[in-house]
Amino acid sequence: MQRYFIAADNWKADNHIVLSANDYHHITRVMRMTEGDKIICNHPYCQAAICVITNISNEQVIAAVEEWLNDSVEMPVNVTVAQGLPKGDKFDLVLQKGTELGASAFLPFEAKRSVVKWDSKKAKKKLERFNKIVKEASEQAHRNRIPSIEEVSPFQKLLEKSKAYDVKLVAYEEETRSEQYHSLGSILKEIDQNQSVLICIGPEGGFTLEEINALKEVGFYTVRLGPRILRTETAALYFLSSISYHFEELEW
Amino acid sequence: MQRYFIAADNWKADNHIVLSANDYHHITRVMRMTEGDKIICNHPYCQAAICVITNISNEQVIAAVEEWLNDSVEMPVNVTVAQGLPKGDKFDLVLQKGTELGASAFLPFEAKRSVVKWDSKKAKKKLERFNKIVKEASEQAHRNRIPSIEEVSPFQKLLEKSKAYDVKLVAYEEETRSEQYHSLGSILKEIDQNQSVLICIGPEGGFTLEEINALKEVGFYTVRLGPRILRTETAALYFLSSISYHFEELEW
Repeated sequence: MQRYFIAADNWKADNHIVLSANDYHHITRVMRMTEGDKIICNHPYCQAAICVITNISNEQVIAAVEEWLNDSVEMPVNVTVAQGLPKGDKFDLVLQKGTELGASAFLPFEAKRSVVKWDSKKAKKKLERFNKIVKEASEQAHRNRIPSIEEVSPFQKLLEKSKAYDVKLVAYEEETRSEQYHSLGSILKEIDQNQSVLICIGPEGGFTLEEINALKEVGFYTVRLGPRILRTETAALYFLSSISYHFEELEW
Repeated sequence: MQRYFIAADNWKADNHIVLSANDYHHITRVMRMTEGDKIICNHPYCQAAICVITNISNEQVIAAVEEWLNDSVEMPVNVTVAQGLPKGDKFDLVLQKGTELGASAFLPFEAKRSVVKWDSKKAKKKLERFNKIVKEASEQAHRNRIPSIEEVSPFQKLLEKSKAYDVKLVAYEEETRSEQYHSLGSILKEIDQNQSVLICIGPEGGFTLEEINALKEVGFYTVRLGPRILRTETAALYFLSSISYHFEELEW
C-alpha cells in the first residue's frame, strides 16, 4: 500500500486527513486512485494508519483513518548521527543508509580536519536535496518517521548541543588500548529504551587530540568499531547496525 | 608505515622478501624510500611483519622481516558474502564497505530477480576492477588479508557451494513472524570462533519463494536485519557490522 508522510496540520478532527500539493498529484495522477482506495498515512509523531479515500476534489484528497498501525519499525532508542563534514557526496550516503538503518536525526558539523566548507549560499538547495534523500529512504525502508537534518554546526556548537543527549559516543580507534576503555557493547548494555544516543564521527582525517579531549570533557565515551579502520562514511553505518542488532535482534 | 600485500612466492628463505613491479615502483618512485626504511609486508596467509629495506636494485627491492605482528584485525569468524547481482555499481559499494567491515570473501550469484546479467566478455575487466577495490579497501582498513572474489555463480551452484560453510544465513524479512524463527542474535550466540559463515542476500526484488525454500532445504536460516526494509546493498553491511559487534565489541 502506498505510504504518505502527512504534516501534523493536515490531520483534522474525527481522524480525517487532507492531502494536497505533491501528495494530491501523486494519488490522483500517478497512482490514479479513486474514492474507496486505501493508503497508509504517517503522522509526524510516529504512528501510521491505514486510511480510506473518502473524497477527491479539484485540489485535495480527503482520507479517513480506518486502522492505526502499531508496527514497531522505529528503533527503541533515538540515535542522532553527528557527522564531521566529509568530502564529496559521502554525506548523501550517510543520510540514505543511516535512514534505512533507523537514525532519528543527523547533525553535520565542521571539524578541524573537515576539508570542505559548506557554502551558505548553496545551503538551501543542499538542504532540499538532503531532505529528499531521507524522505525517499524513509518510504523505502517503511519507516514511521522521517529523520530530521539539523543545520551545520561549528564544533563548539556541537559540544553545547550534545548536552541534550543521555548517552554520547565518539568513534576513536586510538583509544582502544587504554585501561579505562569501555567497549561499545558494555555501553549499549547500560542504555534504557527511549533514551537518546548521540554518535559522533570525525571527517576523513579523524579528530584532533584537542577535539577528542573536548568531547570527553562534556561526557563522550570513546569507542572502537571493530579492530579495522573504517572510512568516515562507514562508521555511522557500523554504529547504527550494531545498535539495531543489540536492541532489536540480539535478545529476540 | 606503508603496507604492501606480497604474494607467497616472493617470501624467500631466511625471512627475506622480494618486492617488484608495482610495489617496486611505489617504494622507489612514489615513496622515494631508501635502504634502511621500514615497511609492513602482509603474507597472503594472514600474518604481517615490519620489514626493513636491505637492498634496492634496478628491478627489485629486498626487505628483511624485523618483527612479526600479531595484531588481530581479522574477524574471529570467516564471513563470506553471497550477493544476488544488483543493479548499477552497487556491487562496488558492497565490495568496498564489506572489505572494511571484515568480509573474508565475496560470492556474486544470479538470482531469479537479478535484472542485470554480467557479460562474460567483460568479466575479466570487471574482475580486475573488483580486485582493485578490495585491495585498496584492505590497505585502507589495515587488514592482514585481501578478501577473495569468486566467479559469478548461477543460483544452483550457490546451493552446492553453500555446503562448505558451517553456518548459512539468508536475509528474508517475510519470515520474521513465524514460530520457528531464530533471530540473528540467537544464531550468532551458537557460532564458535573460526567457523565459516555464509550470508546470503537477494537482489533488488528480493528472493522468490522457490529460492527461499531451496535455500532452507540446504540448511539456511532466514533472519531479519532489524524491522526496517533495507536496500540490497545495505544488507551485507548490517550483517557484517552486527557480526563484528557480536564477536569483537560486545563482550570486550
